[in-house]
Amino acid sequence: MSNRKAAVLVAGSWGTALAAVLADNGFNVALWSRNEAQTDEINTHRTNSRYLKDAVLPSRITATTDMGQAVSGAELVLFVAPSAAMRDVAKQAAPFLDADAIVVHATKGFESGTYKRMTTVLSEELSLGDDRLVVLSGPSHAEEVVRKLPTTVVVASTSKEAAERAQDAFITNYFRVYTNKDVVGVEVAGAIKNIIALGAGLTDGLGFGDNAKAALLTRGLAEISRLGNAMGANPLTFAGLAGVGDLVVTCTSKHSRNWRAGSLLAEGLSLDDVLSQMGMVVEGVRTTSTARELSHQFGVEMPITEQLYQVLFQQKTPRSAVESLMGRGRTHETEDTAGI
Amino acid sequence: MSNRKAAVLVAGSWGTALAAVLADNGFNVALWSRNEAQTDEINTHRTNSRYLKDAVLPSRITATTDMGQAVSGAELVLFVAPSAAMRDVAKQAAPFLDADAIVVHATKGFESGTYKRMTTVLSEELSLGDDRLVVLSGPSHAEEVVRKLPTTVVVASTSKEAAERAQDAFITNYFRVYTNKDVVGVEVAGAIKNIIALGAGLTDGLGFGDNAKAALLTRGLAEISRLGNAMGANPLTFAGLAGVGDLVVTCTSKHSRNWRAGSLLAEGLSLDDVLSQMGMVVEGVRTTSTARELSHQFGVEMPITEQLYQVLFQQKTPRSAVESLMGRGRTHETEDTAGI
Repeated sequence: MSNRKAAVLVAGSWGTALAAVLADNGFNVALWSRNEAQTDEINTHRTNSRYLKDAVLPSRITATTDMGQAVSGAELVLFVAPSAAMRDVAKQAAPFLDADAIVVHATKGFESGTYKRMTTVLSEELSLGDDRLVVLSGPSHAEEVVRKLPTTVVVASTSKEAAERAQDAFITNYFRVYTNKDVVGVEVAGAIKNIIALGAGLTDGLGFGDNAKAALLTRGLAEISRLGNAMGANPLTFAGLAGVGDLVVTCTSKHSRNWRAGSLLAEGLSLDDVLSQMGMVVEGVRTTSTARELSHQFGVEMPITEQLYQVLFQQKTPRSAVESLMGRGRTHETEDTAGI
Repeated sequence: MSNRKAAVLVAGSWGTALAAVLADNGFNVALWSRNEAQTDEINTHRTNSRYLKDAVLPSRITATTDMGQAVSGAELVLFVAPSAAMRDVAKQAAPFLDADAIVVHATKGFESGTYKRMTTVLSEELSLGDDRLVVLSGPSHAEEVVRKLPTTVVVASTSKEAAERAQDAFITNYFRVYTNKDVVGVEVAGAIKNIIALGAGLTDGLGFGDNAKAALLTRGLAEISRLGNAMGANPLTFAGLAGVGDLVVTCTSKHSRNWRAGSLLAEGLSLDDVLSQMGMVVEGVRTTSTARELSHQFGVEMPITEQLYQVLFQQKTPRSAVESLMGRGRTHETEDTAGI
């Protein structure tokens, strides 16, 4: 039996699915959660029913509420906390991190208020250089990963060695892992795509058809690329798994909360009504504000984000937002995107 | 009333829809077809029922079987013949082409046997330089365009002036047109995406889920970009409307013949059975051979195309093709795509 140890914080659906991948690859996995009822369920019944209905978890996974026990001795620590909790979870983990462990995160979103990327938050709290930090992203419903359906993801790090260590840790015959150097691009793509999902729900709700949805997705991707490029990303990353790939999964799934919020807005509900009817967080709403703020900070034109912002927060009707987008000045497709 | 004249050859669904856009923009449009019953129907009833059920065509469209009458005096001639018929239609049109007309085409595919792009065929038959040739492409079901649902396309030409003339001719409040310089990229993207649609039908037919389909689409796009890059295209074009945009529309529509052929293959039918059951041309089948041939000619690795070729023509099972793809050597995501 292998003596390799990995830690996964926390035990949501994506964290649990990735813990199962690591366990399938021979790691003994410590899966950390604050919730003792949940860790008991995982250890006793091999299930995490609130987050992954029907999945039976590998026996190499041990759940714990003890952060020291989870992180100590792990050669790979995977952070999958919600973006709002990332700094706090990292702070708790910091004292126990092994000196040569690599740190991977699979969380989408910026830190609220500071607009910092997750690797920045982790680097600050764990006092780590970029060479030990990796981001994992891509088109990956957790439910399909635990069923071992074919899935591809990208692991990005400025350190080739760290990226390849993460690739080795996660790659299996059903989970294909590509390396990438572009940390900024992968993080920006993952964080911002929810805006486009919200917009997709809106155009679908207005009955605009497949052409309009494909246009939104493609031109949405173009403006995310422009922002990413201004922030230092490689525009080609947005054509990859963390960009197009994730966007396609998000925008074509009707289970997405963002899509549903958009379709309710199209029916004429106000934002307050949509949010209270859904009774849960809709990431795309907050992300729209964040992206708009970043577009101003970096001096990048983001017309779709701007129109969505006006629909969400300034009572613009969805139909007139679409008219504004279609009636813009005549433009070239790619010359604004990159220095090519 | 405007005296501007455009010609559209031929009167299939896409040609007819684009003729309607030009007519909405004030052009008198001559719509050419070999079929007299069809031109009579268009002129008498303002319908083209075989190709666009339910659409009522603008009165500025006049259908004709007379090539000279169609092309003479037109400042823009739009070719939308099937790729197999393009050379012949161009040959017939050549004697009537005005000296300063621009030539636009909206046909996806290479010439059979020669693997030539459509602008090459047109340039040869019309004795035109690149500065008067434009390709129009993007995510655009014809049925949605005639209903004036929001649609975006790209017009590419090596001549900025020609691209902008085409942009002016087609742009309306429901049909947004972006210019692009990358003719090769736009033509390669449009021609080859049918392979990925075929593959999407295959993974859906095998019950592989959204992660696998997004992976196929993204990695398929990556290998099309690699080929395009080797042929002289800008890799960013593949992230645009003619690439991602068109791919998303094609792969998520279950009305696509290519998708359906793939799903039947997944059920275990042989290629012969699939083709005889469908009773019509499946572009993706021929395109798979063409792309494989081009990948060898240009020395580009195209693993998805190769596996599809083996499924179509060498009796490989779809399941083992997927296993071959997932079990390939470990790779980097973008460094093989472009010189960035």
